[in-house]
Amino acid sequence: MDLKQYIRAVPDFPKPGIRFRDLTPLLAHAEAFGFVLGRMAAVAEATRPGAIVGVESRGFLFGAPIAAQLGVPFAPVRKPGKLPAARFSVEYSLEYGQNHLEIHQDAFALGTRVYVIDDLLATGGTARATAQLVEMVGGVVVGLGFVIELEELAGRDALSAYPVDSLVVFRPGE
Amino acid sequence: MDLKQYIRAVPDFPKPGIRFRDLTPLLAHAEAFGFVLGRMAAVAEATRPGAIVGVESRGFLFGAPIAAQLGVPFAPVRKPGKLPAARFSVEYSLEYGQNHLEIHQDAFALGTRVYVIDDLLATGGTARATAQLVEMVGGVVVGLGFVIELEELAGRDALSAYPVDSLVVFRPGE
Repeated sequence: MDLKQYIRAVPDFPKPGIRFRDLTPLLAHAEAFGFVLGRMAAVAEATRPGAIVGVESRGFLFGAPIAAQLGVPFAPVRKPGKLPAARFSVEYSLEYGQNHLEIHQDAFALGTRVYVIDDLLATGGTARATAQLVEMVGGVVVGLGFVIELEELAGRDALSAYPVDSLVVFRPGE
Repeated sequence: MDLKQYIRAVPDFPKPGIRFRDLTPLLAHAEAFGFVLGRMAAVAEATRPGAIVGVESRGFLFGAPIAAQLGVPFAPVRKPGKLPAARFSVEYSLEYGQNHLEIHQDAFALGTRVYVIDDLLATGGTARATAQLVEMVGGVVVGLGFVIELEELAGRDALSAYPVDSLVVFRPGE
């Protein structure tokens, strides 16, 4: 299945010079969405995860269905001020400024094998922060899975400590 | 299945006097999460939906898996500044201030039967705004489904134009 036809490129969003990859056409195409979930779930399953962690918000769209398909617990990583119980927090740098992410301290049991899901791998900053949060809870990151990878931003290098899977890779100029 | 045991009450979150209903224990319990998705999907399916709309962010956790289970398209309703293509916007009042929600103008085809999913029915403001957005795109709201309903906030009355389904109802003082 040629998944790139379901990914809309939007120039200059959210900032001038950024070429945004919009996954809403894929979500709107039930067969393509089902195909992506099935493929990502199979890759995740091979790591024998005890939990799936999804990153707010677009990571929820893929992480929650994959956890449900695999029959394993799901834990959200969220922006500050959203998780109500005791939590861990990390700060990390983005292209534009600083960001924070949080996880509940009771997100999963100590030693749980955790597979992380997000929609897009760009610089890897968000994913690395998520992996740190998983480790703060006492989990073992067994892999990180993305629908899209933007090759020129070298996110894979930032995540070299972990297995990284992506389904659709955009090369420079694509 | 007694679902209330998987819903954590957090007093004074996000503001003093608010008793927050935290669904992360339910997400962390694969059997309970699967049960909720199966029940909500069955209720949605009976309305013969052509698409599922989920509301950012927690509505994504339930709406996306249910769309995938039913094999129908999914469209997100999001906060401002997140959807990159041409969109419709509505403003609505919350307990504390104003809020905006947006939907892509091409979220689904004209005349599509749309079932709306969110985690929680409180005053119904967010759900009513979402129904308006669906109608601006040209869809027909065939129902709205929630995991939790807070009965004393009378959200059902605010949504009296639509069929409303909820799985777990909290009564005053509960």
